[in-house]
Amino acid sequence: MSTIRYRNLDSLKSFGELQRASPTDLPALLERDAGRRVEQYTAPIVDGMHYNFAAKAVDDTIVELLHRLAHEAQLLEKYRATVNGEIINTGEQRMVLHHLTRGEIGPDVNLNGRSLLRFYRDQHQRAFAFAEKVHTGEIVGSTGKQFDTVVQIGIGGSDLGPRAVFYALQNYVLHDHGEQPLQARFISNVDPDDAAGVLAGIDPETTLFVLVSKSGTTQETLTNEAFVLDALEQTGVSGLHPRKHIVAVTSETSPLARSSEYLDAFYIDDYIGGRYSSTSPVGSVVLSLAFGPSVVGRFLVGAHRADLAALENPVERNAAVLDALTGVYERNVLGYSATAVLPYSQALSRFPAHLQQLDMESNGKRVNRFGEPVAYATGPLVFGEPGTNGQHSFYQLLHQGTDIVPMQFIGFRRSQLQQDLEFEGSSSQRKLNANLIAQIVAFAIGQYNEDANKAFPGGRPSSLIYAERLTPEVLGALLSHYENKVMFQGFAWNINSFDQEGVQLGKVLTKQILAEDGSAPPAITALRKLLGV
Amino acid sequence: MSTIRYRNLDSLKSFGELQRASPTDLPALLERDAGRRVEQYTAPIVDGMHYNFAAKAVDDTIVELLHRLAHEAQLLEKYRATVNGEIINTGEQRMVLHHLTRGEIGPDVNLNGRSLLRFYRDQHQRAFAFAEKVHTGEIVGSTGKQFDTVVQIGIGGSDLGPRAVFYALQNYVLHDHGEQPLQARFISNVDPDDAAGVLAGIDPETTLFVLVSKSGTTQETLTNEAFVLDALEQTGVSGLHPRKHIVAVTSETSPLARSSEYLDAFYIDDYIGGRYSSTSPVGSVVLSLAFGPSVVGRFLVGAHRADLAALENPVERNAAVLDALTGVYERNVLGYSATAVLPYSQALSRFPAHLQQLDMESNGKRVNRFGEPVAYATGPLVFGEPGTNGQHSFYQLLHQGTDIVPMQFIGFRRSQLQQDLEFEGSSSQRKLNANLIAQIVAFAIGQYNEDANKAFPGGRPSSLIYAERLTPEVLGALLSHYENKVMFQGFAWNINSFDQEGVQLGKVLTKQILAEDGSAPPAITALRKLLGV
Repeated sequence: MSTIRYRNLDSLKSFGELQRASPTDLPALLERDAGRRVEQYTAPIVDGMHYNFAAKAVDDTIVELLHRLAHEAQLLEKYRATVNGEIINTGEQRMVLHHLTRGEIGPDVNLNGRSLLRFYRDQHQRAFAFAEKVHTGEIVGSTGKQFDTVVQIGIGGSDLGPRAVFYALQNYVLHDHGEQPLQARFISNVDPDDAAGVLAGIDPETTLFVLVSKSGTTQETLTNEAFVLDALEQTGVSGLHPRKHIVAVTSETSPLARSSEYLDAFYIDDYIGGRYSSTSPVGSVVLSLAFGPSVVGRFLVGAHRADLAALENPVERNAAVLDALTGVYERNVLGYSATAVLPYSQALSRFPAHLQQLDMESNGKRVNRFGEPVAYATGPLVFGEPGTNGQHSFYQLLHQGTDIVPMQFIGFRRSQLQQDLEFEGSSSQRKLNANLIAQIVAFAIGQYNEDANKAFPGGRPSSLIYAERLTPEVLGALLSHYENKVMFQGFAWNINSFDQEGVQLGKVLTKQILAEDGSAPPAITALRKLLGV
Repeated sequence: MSTIRYRNLDSLKSFGELQRASPTDLPALLERDAGRRVEQYTAPIVDGMHYNFAAKAVDDTIVELLHRLAHEAQLLEKYRATVNGEIINTGEQRMVLHHLTRGEIGPDVNLNGRSLLRFYRDQHQRAFAFAEKVHTGEIVGSTGKQFDTVVQIGIGGSDLGPRAVFYALQNYVLHDHGEQPLQARFISNVDPDDAAGVLAGIDPETTLFVLVSKSGTTQETLTNEAFVLDALEQTGVSGLHPRKHIVAVTSETSPLARSSEYLDAFYIDDYIGGRYSSTSPVGSVVLSLAFGPSVVGRFLVGAHRADLAALENPVERNAAVLDALTGVYERNVLGYSATAVLPYSQALSRFPAHLQQLDMESNGKRVNRFGEPVAYATGPLVFGEPGTNGQHSFYQLLHQGTDIVPMQFIGFRRSQLQQDLEFEGSSSQRKLNANLIAQIVAFAIGQYNEDANKAFPGGRPSSLIYAERLTPEVLGALLSHYENKVMFQGFAWNINSFDQEGVQLGKVLTKQILAEDGSAPPAITALRKLLGV
């Protein structure tokens, strides 16, 4: 393996060539050459699941330059260095090991003589065993009643990913298992209406709370823990021990880990970033309680398979690499500043919110991994809603607005619940997918009309990720595909995708306000009276 | 009143002056002059509810130019022409009368001798009377059982607005009324998992379905109606008449209006655009069933008051005008392409999705109201999630990314459920609002750090909408404020904010695919096999 060099994007020869390459005429390309493009502009994510970029504004020349960029930026070598345990998170001087939470992908990484692969695996096994005992009634609430509900208390990475996965698999579990072992709810916001609203709909006595904070110091999460403890006390049920209704998911060194009063605790460490932690106990505890361990195990297997494919497939048919570099081309050569994720599956309703964090918190950076400002655009704005809903909403701007917003569609041949109905000659699932395909072509090719208000300019690029059905394995692979795409883009931009210094200043100023010690800047004094704080 | 002239933004003298005005130094302005700015850069939306733009990148010179732009573009005159019944929706040659659904705001608008104000009011009264009869059990399901659930079936404007309002008031109703008369759910997506998932959680026999489609031809909505009818039939309950569990909300000329088989029907007309229809029966039927008519009445009053304020307040203290033109300045002079809406209230979790449609579908246009392409940017990309959640997600990019994204915060002094807890010296509500204020200052002023990775550049503008508590009146005013802001921006850009031709091509191509008649273009043939359609 050649020595790894971390270089800025604009110092790469292939990037200069990309900038000088002729831009394509997407409508013409897709009208002329759709068959070949659909067949060749594709790469597998895992078996039966593909990334297709036939409707992206690239041609053979540009694709070839993207391959060269992947090599020159040493994307695969940097990924391998990551799983080998190198210090990839330079800002915090940490390894980046979330891939190991899904399975063995490189040599074992040891820390102080401990195998981290085994550590992550053991925590999952503990979560699974715990969930099974809750399901069988071997573990019950402090008053002896069986748990029927689980509530995750966490924010950001401890909320968005697990919540998106929960919604994505709820119907699947209903169909394939007939029922869901425990009902699940989520509390995240420090807004008291969030916790109070959730608590109004559950019985605290039969609820198991999963308190998730890696540091054990997250303001919102500790505040909501206090809120929940208070609600448990307010039940007035004799013999109820509030903390025995809570399990913690935290790092071994956090304040939460030191409390023996919780029912149990599951551990993560500093090498799993919050937004990459859905496949750690941050996700596996609540999800195995809600769905059972076997569903979670399949989810982890899917994620692991996509990790391996992204590591082992040559760049020419590496979906995560190609997705990443198409995005870099759109961001840094074509100059598009946002990208839409459009899942044609209601089950993925909150998946874009997870991707928004994953992508924008990872790559919304102004300095490279050495702390030097970069002279090019980095991470785009990411947003999205499920189709076909979005078609009746913001698609107007995507079709006829003054800016171009690249898109990624996600589709499945079959539905999750497998309940469908023929109506006016087609099933709902067929209508859904017909809409998806129609949109790709409408965006890319457009349509002339002598009335300019009814004309579609086209030239609006999109890609498609598709699979047979949104199973736990497919969802795991999807999650992992995006994580790897974001990582590869971070490598291309030469930034550190694994810290988040941009969240710090707000925390400091909030503390100054709450401390009332006169340390807050004058602008805060002027503004705070508007909200009476 | 002077004659109204519809002119492009770039033909206005004041716009040229705005372009030539010196850009401001926001960090310096806010550090030096915060007190005065907070006091003066403000305008009332309704009593007790304000728009404050102290942290926007404007100074007295620019504000003065925005006032002149408002006059020169005749924003208030064009709004008055709208409520007077002029043909503002030029593309479809229609009046734009959603303001009248909230109350009397101009002279009565008559059509074929009928008062439209009275028509809209009558439909609300019918909806209220109907809801009361359902609540008292005077109207029951076809098997004689009382309804306990209402399910809205609609998409786009028939879904996003009413759904956002429902979530926004659920906790409020719980607190102030002790309970919610009917549970409410929503089906929108043609994805069969959406309808099947909702149906799995309800009892169709005791559910009232509200079928909402202005045209009566919306593919998704009719498909989901068939889905629901099938589910009602599948119950096998003897004597159950499926259509007697459905009420329609539609236009008087639609196919749905002609069916006497429905339990009842409520009417809207062509002068209420889908995304502006939450205050028509599209919202009032489901919301009065879920919450009771008095809550809906208060919501309409709030919307009406904000409409009046936006019509009658001089531009210098007109919140909707100032919010609109600050946005135009950011879009067309500063060149920012997106804007974030950040409500610090979990109740507003789906409000950004509604605003996304409202704004992007209204102003995502490339041609002016005369059908001529414009040479300037129009509507921005709009997105958002509640704070503090977003702080742990995409705020990283907003603080330290390479692009600047203007923001609008929304905050309330008090929570909805009024359940709160002191923890570590402050209540949750106080923590929530301390975070909000801290973010405004962190974004605007930033902070130097010799480690560039920990430095905050500042200069990231935001505004704040705030009120005492998210009541039905305040929510109505908030909804209406945004509608009026979007309308004023449309006037400034000289576009038609009330049609949506950009949704048509996708519909045509979808039909071609489903018809299987060989009319679909070759690119579709190549792509459709990927999803087996």
